[in-house]
Amino acid sequence: MRVYLDCWPCFLRQALSASRRAGASPALQRAILEETMTELRALPAEATPPEMGERIHRLVRERTRVSDPYLDVKQEATALAMALLPELRARVAADADPLETAVRIAITGNIIDYGVAESFDLEATLERVLHATPAIDDLPVLRRALEQVDTVLYLADNAGETVFDRVLIETLPVPVRYAVKAGPVLNDATRDEAIAAGLDQVAELTDTGCDAMGAPLGLCSPAFRASFERAPLIIAKGQANYETLSGVAAPVCFLLQAKCAVIAEDIGVAPGSVIIAASERLRTQIDPQEGVQS
Amino acid sequence: MRVYLDCWPCFLRQALSASRRAGASPALQRAILEETMTELRALPAEATPPEMGERIHRLVRERTRVSDPYLDVKQEATALAMALLPELRARVAADADPLETAVRIAITGNIIDYGVAESFDLEATLERVLHATPAIDDLPVLRRALEQVDTVLYLADNAGETVFDRVLIETLPVPVRYAVKAGPVLNDATRDEAIAAGLDQVAELTDTGCDAMGAPLGLCSPAFRASFERAPLIIAKGQANYETLSGVAAPVCFLLQAKCAVIAEDIGVAPGSVIIAASERLRTQIDPQEGVQS
Repeated sequence: MRVYLDCWPCFLRQALSASRRAGASPALQRAILEETMTELRALPAEATPPEMGERIHRLVRERTRVSDPYLDVKQEATALAMALLPELRARVAADADPLETAVRIAITGNIIDYGVAESFDLEATLERVLHATPAIDDLPVLRRALEQVDTVLYLADNAGETVFDRVLIETLPVPVRYAVKAGPVLNDATRDEAIAAGLDQVAELTDTGCDAMGAPLGLCSPAFRASFERAPLIIAKGQANYETLSGVAAPVCFLLQAKCAVIAEDIGVAPGSVIIAASERLRTQIDPQEGVQS
Repeated sequence: MRVYLDCWPCFLRQALSASRRAGASPALQRAILEETMTELRALPAEATPPEMGERIHRLVRERTRVSDPYLDVKQEATALAMALLPELRARVAADADPLETAVRIAITGNIIDYGVAESFDLEATLERVLHATPAIDDLPVLRRALEQVDTVLYLADNAGETVFDRVLIETLPVPVRYAVKAGPVLNDATRDEAIAAGLDQVAELTDTGCDAMGAPLGLCSPAFRASFERAPLIIAKGQANYETLSGVAAPVCFLLQAKCAVIAEDIGVAPGSVIIAASERLRTQIDPQEGVQS
């Protein structure tokens, strides 16, 4: 998904919010907004929103000399989510369809996103997502794929959301590689936040090799790209992974809430929708009725 | 009230929205956003948000060569509000305190604001504002002032909102001069929209002498400034009038909904609050117990 003009105001809002989180003075906040506007003018037409987001957050880190402005909110979100872990596991265990419940729980965690809003309500989101009718529901494709693959590459999104991912990973029948960011960007999970959420106990931790949001393959490490190309099934969490991978031919199942109105319109759903979307490649690779086609 | 950095994203959003309403191509939309960013860099530190808004809307009119991009929504809003007029009058007539009800009705109309949102719900807003506890309630000051003055200068805001103003003006005990904009800007009322709402039947129509939002005195005509300086009581509707006049020493009663979070914080109230706020000058000029002090 490319940057829409509708993203421009949102980029300024994010730059201002990140500057303040990093403790920038009003003069520095203004300077960062001005540099963000310069970057916007120069943005290549094919750039995706996470690529611009990455520039903004790098700019804020460099100008404020604060290496991780979201460290405290990442730790808070992880602690909040960890407190819910027993309840989340109990819900999966009590349900007749543990996979569906675990997938919805993983999508619930996607509400933890400081790029879109400054606060969130986990409990209310859990009830909403558990009972929502997904606007796109490729759960049958995902279910069938999980029966046919021997490993999953799971692309993480935000800190705290990691705990919700853990519940899904504990439910999956195959080994998982869990890919976080190689360095801080926004409130995205890095190795530290994955370990704080216990992901090292349920998956092999890896990273994208870069500190971009989502997984823009051109910026990721060769090792990550190789792992991405080999993966028979990729579960990609959240908006930034959708934005950077929606145009890539790979066997991906996107799990997200379409929180942003622009992304929702790009997908063709109402804002706030719950999305379980198989890529074309995954859909053709897996036949829900007959097994592998290609 | 000066421009906050928080206003910058909102200015880009408004520029994009106005460009689209004017039918600009995507390339022209982008060019207008870029020019808006240039204007933002050059904005004087003491500028108010409506002054920047005026530049944006002039830019859109000039670049798109559409003299009034909001003409259709102004006409729609006026028609919607006119359909409510009998009900609004009946509510005032049925109430034990007609002035209070009419003031709340006038404030209800302030929801019609395409600078803040792309849509509104008049009926729901009416119920909310009629029953809300105002965050600032200087109705006693306004009531006393109305007993002591022989004329009111009423500063209009948006088309459609004019109908709600008419209900208040019909309730006022003194003659009113109703000041609209001298030319189109956003969905602000001009003479055409005031006449479409029948304001010429209940007040003497005048204008600010400029097409700026609110009433930035430096941009208004000498005739308007003279009329403003002579006025013993000014009723100023909406956010833009608040933004441009909150720092001016004049006997003003501001009637508005603090729809924008930045304005709400500047006033010190929750977003969405109903405001009936007397200026310091009005407060000292009118003594609610004893009559005129100075």
